[in-house]
Amino acid sequence: MTQPTHRPLPLQQVQLQDSFWSDYTELVRTTVIPYQWEALNDRVPGAEPSHAIRNFRIAAGLEAGAYGGLVFQDSDLAKWLESVGYSLSTHPDPELERIADEAIDLIVAAQQDDGYLNTYYTVKEPGRRWTNLYDCHEMYCAGHMIEAAVAYYRATGKRKLMDAMGRMADHIAEVFGTGPGQLRGYDGHQEIELALVKLYEATGEARFLRLSQFLIDERGREPHFYAEEWKRRGGVSHWSSVPQTQMPDWAYVQAHLPVREQTYAVGHAVRAVYMYAGMADLAAHTGDRALLEACRALWRNMTRKQMYVTGGIGSTVHGEAFTFDYDLPNATNYSETCASIGLIFFASRMLRLEAKSDYADVMERALYNTVLAGIAADGKHYFYVNPMEVWPEASARNPGRRHVKAVRQAWYGCACCPPNVARLLASLGEYVYSAEGAEGDTLYTHLYISGEARLSLGGGEVRMRQESRLPWSGDVAFTVETDTPQTFALALRIPAWTEGRYTARVNGEAAGAVELREGYAYLRRVWQAGDRVELRLAMPIQRLYAHPQVRSDAGLVALQRGPLVYCLEEADNPAPLAGLSLPAEAEITTRTGLPGLGEAVVLEAAGLADDAADWQEDELYRTAPMPRKTQRLTAVPYALWGNRGGGEMRVWMRS
Amino acid sequence: MTQPTHRPLPLQQVQLQDSFWSDYTELVRTTVIPYQWEALNDRVPGAEPSHAIRNFRIAAGLEAGAYGGLVFQDSDLAKWLESVGYSLSTHPDPELERIADEAIDLIVAAQQDDGYLNTYYTVKEPGRRWTNLYDCHEMYCAGHMIEAAVAYYRATGKRKLMDAMGRMADHIAEVFGTGPGQLRGYDGHQEIELALVKLYEATGEARFLRLSQFLIDERGREPHFYAEEWKRRGGVSHWSSVPQTQMPDWAYVQAHLPVREQTYAVGHAVRAVYMYAGMADLAAHTGDRALLEACRALWRNMTRKQMYVTGGIGSTVHGEAFTFDYDLPNATNYSETCASIGLIFFASRMLRLEAKSDYADVMERALYNTVLAGIAADGKHYFYVNPMEVWPEASARNPGRRHVKAVRQAWYGCACCPPNVARLLASLGEYVYSAEGAEGDTLYTHLYISGEARLSLGGGEVRMRQESRLPWSGDVAFTVETDTPQTFALALRIPAWTEGRYTARVNGEAAGAVELREGYAYLRRVWQAGDRVELRLAMPIQRLYAHPQVRSDAGLVALQRGPLVYCLEEADNPAPLAGLSLPAEAEITTRTGLPGLGEAVVLEAAGLADDAADWQEDELYRTAPMPRKTQRLTAVPYALWGNRGGGEMRVWMRS
Repeated sequence: MTQPTHRPLPLQQVQLQDSFWSDYTELVRTTVIPYQWEALNDRVPGAEPSHAIRNFRIAAGLEAGAYGGLVFQDSDLAKWLESVGYSLSTHPDPELERIADEAIDLIVAAQQDDGYLNTYYTVKEPGRRWTNLYDCHEMYCAGHMIEAAVAYYRATGKRKLMDAMGRMADHIAEVFGTGPGQLRGYDGHQEIELALVKLYEATGEARFLRLSQFLIDERGREPHFYAEEWKRRGGVSHWSSVPQTQMPDWAYVQAHLPVREQTYAVGHAVRAVYMYAGMADLAAHTGDRALLEACRALWRNMTRKQMYVTGGIGSTVHGEAFTFDYDLPNATNYSETCASIGLIFFASRMLRLEAKSDYADVMERALYNTVLAGIAADGKHYFYVNPMEVWPEASARNPGRRHVKAVRQAWYGCACCPPNVARLLASLGEYVYSAEGAEGDTLYTHLYISGEARLSLGGGEVRMRQESRLPWSGDVAFTVETDTPQTFALALRIPAWTEGRYTARVNGEAAGAVELREGYAYLRRVWQAGDRVELRLAMPIQRLYAHPQVRSDAGLVALQRGPLVYCLEEADNPAPLAGLSLPAEAEITTRTGLPGLGEAVVLEAAGLADDAADWQEDELYRTAPMPRKTQRLTAVPYALWGNRGGGEMRVWMRS
Repeated sequence: MTQPTHRPLPLQQVQLQDSFWSDYTELVRTTVIPYQWEALNDRVPGAEPSHAIRNFRIAAGLEAGAYGGLVFQDSDLAKWLESVGYSLSTHPDPELERIADEAIDLIVAAQQDDGYLNTYYTVKEPGRRWTNLYDCHEMYCAGHMIEAAVAYYRATGKRKLMDAMGRMADHIAEVFGTGPGQLRGYDGHQEIELALVKLYEATGEARFLRLSQFLIDERGREPHFYAEEWKRRGGVSHWSSVPQTQMPDWAYVQAHLPVREQTYAVGHAVRAVYMYAGMADLAAHTGDRALLEACRALWRNMTRKQMYVTGGIGSTVHGEAFTFDYDLPNATNYSETCASIGLIFFASRMLRLEAKSDYADVMERALYNTVLAGIAADGKHYFYVNPMEVWPEASARNPGRRHVKAVRQAWYGCACCPPNVARLLASLGEYVYSAEGAEGDTLYTHLYISGEARLSLGGGEVRMRQESRLPWSGDVAFTVETDTPQTFALALRIPAWTEGRYTARVNGEAAGAVELREGYAYLRRVWQAGDRVELRLAMPIQRLYAHPQVRSDAGLVALQRGPLVYCLEEADNPAPLAGLSLPAEAEITTRTGLPGLGEAVVLEAAGLADDAADWQEDELYRTAPMPRKTQRLTAVPYALWGNRGGGEMRVWMRS
């Protein structure tokens, strides 16, 4: 085992207090987590029941009844508990901890004597464990519960759930392996791979890392585990009892090739990025070059050929999946919120392997755009699908666009995205910094979010206070507090959106010859208490154009300022938005104070609109060209769309 | 019963001999009909078996075995036989007639003693007749066989099949009706409604018209027949044995409302237009004003809000259906060839009700574009789906575009479009003319296709010879041959694409004050043998723009010249075609002689192309605008696309 060169800062050491982000993180703490708990307990009026808690009660013998919900319903409780762990790390809350302890008692009560934990198989199909790895998410649920256990342990020091999940991992390692009588299988929905690395990091037990490696190593190998399993099942699936004559395409679960041979992002997008994150974790801990190279290739393909400008991934609803290079349709894409969260996981792991701002740029893009768009300002409504273009009537009446919701929905039957958003936002502090070197002699800042970090740097304890005005302006300041002067480097990410324009001043003076490497500016010096760094990142309004192979965006332009991608909404612009265009020469200005958007900086420009005044109602096609008229355009952050009623929305506009 | 004001000319009276169309009609006669016969007999190497003939042999007790193919497989044989009937009308062929007679003997041998004819229920589910009208196409198959019977009778005078189908119609009239013990049902796939009108026209038996009217009258009424039937079936369907908890939306089969209350084209597009054609037939024969008004409203909605510029209908693959007004996506549309054929049926019936060129304009648009695009130059390959835009890689790798084939396919498992194209082209002569008045004192020309028509006009026999150079030029001449001078009007359609510019000369002199009414120019005079009318229709190259509510076409332009819509193909233009644009000021010129396109007139213009030369491979988005460069654009008739290998295609181009 080797050590990753970078380590993230534990959540307890990063206290965020940010005028932009705290709105969201507070929402998670004060609204989302309590609301989710009610939902898990089937106490939200009008909402479909979750069944999650009840399933555990039935499995624990505390209640009679039938299993309810989807096969992976356990993971909802796990994700909630993980959020609780993160929340308690930064905001101790005895009452919440008491509720969580009780939930953990319940979970452990539902665990079987041999360590197995899964309420679906315990309640509904006892004796059928591990017979359908491809469909049934047993390890996926275990993975989420492991993540919850580690988060809760790190927050509270309580090991009960972590020990229980260690027993589950040991049980898995008994059933699965290369030995006689063992299954050489792996889960259809990757998740446990990265979770086991967390369990290894928390416990120091190398066997958990080895189990993760086994699962990664076996995936896609011949003879193909899923092919054998499919034949054993007689071609039926969990979702349909009608035997299929053709085997599924294993690319859907990224098992079409051994993972080290994969270079092209395919299949279900969430599974893909969870797996890539696990691969990067393993590469960091084992020094496995082939895994690292596969991660790099997959990263490059995904972010350079298959990613929306909002950091969304997954071009099709069919299988919630990638399609192929440059296929980025705007009105029918999937871009699941969870997939962008997984992309953030992957990016943050790649940053531990190599400090290249590209990873952080993408992480920031996904975070500030798709992930934020996924959650409503009230914290109770969510998008799973994050389209580039919405026409509400088409969402309602064209079946090919039915998956694209025009307004955020309350908690869904398959509640994957809301708790995923919650756990990401509750742990946001983990993504802001990392430290490099055994003695932590470089502190990296990947994201600009106000707050305070405490860590050991250059041999001593340092407190670094960040004050950021992102995303509305590019002014950031850092103040060092330390008892004794310390030598270390502060490595500041220079985002691509600055177009290389920034200034860094230390204690009011130009920082001088700053080393700029792979997108980070390194300020290395002996830092004294009270030293202050002022970073001014230029935040030009950017017109973005897509690669010419992206047919969907040909002739179109998108707007970005700082980390935020903008969009047109019908609330501010006349429909149909397709009739609007932004001429190349139009000056774009900023303004604030748009009603309903708080302090958001919005963009305005003198655009053009198709002038439909002289069209006859009954004229579908005509030879007279469309007259144009001037039209003020207002673009708002994509992160905030859909918070002011329904209506059309468009990211890419005619240029 | 009343008489329609217009009557089409029987096929025997219209002999087409046209340099453009004869290629296609000869292909049908010499290639398609023989090829289809082989297919029906399961003798096409490599093709999925049709089972159609074999099913009839089994039903007739001539062969043992199991039913094969879809529930409506019988209709394939019917459509073939209908084509044969049309072909024999204009091209007697004793050998083909012998084969057809044998097929008819087989069909009649498969008929049951009570008149019932359907091989699926006879062979596979005896005793289950009429238990699933919604799914199972029993009347649909009967309707096609009635059409075949009438066509064959008109061509040969042989009544055997027509009498048999009369017995089937009588059997249906026993089972269905408003009397005690009768079912108040109607078929899930409309077709028999228009077929029964043909049977009435051929036999003069009013009971067939009344049966058609019953089926139209009952449709969509409450208590809802399909709802009752669905409950009787226990919610299962022909396609799935899993009981559904929710009833289907009857709009899919246009049974959501009584037909006279329908004003909005919805549901499966082929079923819709077949029904509308039947409604128009009934309105013509019964003088039913409410039906006529419904037809007008549905026509207006469909052609003014939901029709592609190629005359295609059906915006979505889901249910092969209409969606809603102005929803005309270019890359995912369905625009089934059969739906445009049905649109032609509907248009030609509306022309019998009222001589308005709008109906003929649409008929011509659908015929010259979607229907022709549906068939390959070899006559053996077909498109079911007629997209506005094709990216072959997306068809292969994006599941939402999988229905859009980039190359025409050989005969499909569900062989609905190829035999439908065949029967339309074999009967093309029926669509060219109609005559008005009991004595036929006006001869209407709806389409400009060379050939000769014989009919009674103004009390005497007239032969009208048409020489047309469409679609390549707008020069058309008519020569009258008659034994004695006759007084009648020649009503010439002035297509909308002339933009009102045309000249008409009679015997070399300007025609003088020509009455122009509803798009037809009426030349009324005493016609002598040898009189010659020269019509010059302007054929400007038209730039077409779509209604501003059509979001998919915003900022785009399409090209049309005469009846032909044009498109860009990768064979002539650099991919990606999305990178090309046609500036408003670019002059467009015509040329001929493009290799592989025969005498087709193609369009050329100095366009622009995105210049991708300086894009980095790894750059998905960038701030530098795309440079443009000049690029010669070549547009070819949409009717001919896909005959020179695969590749991209686009109808709507950037403007």
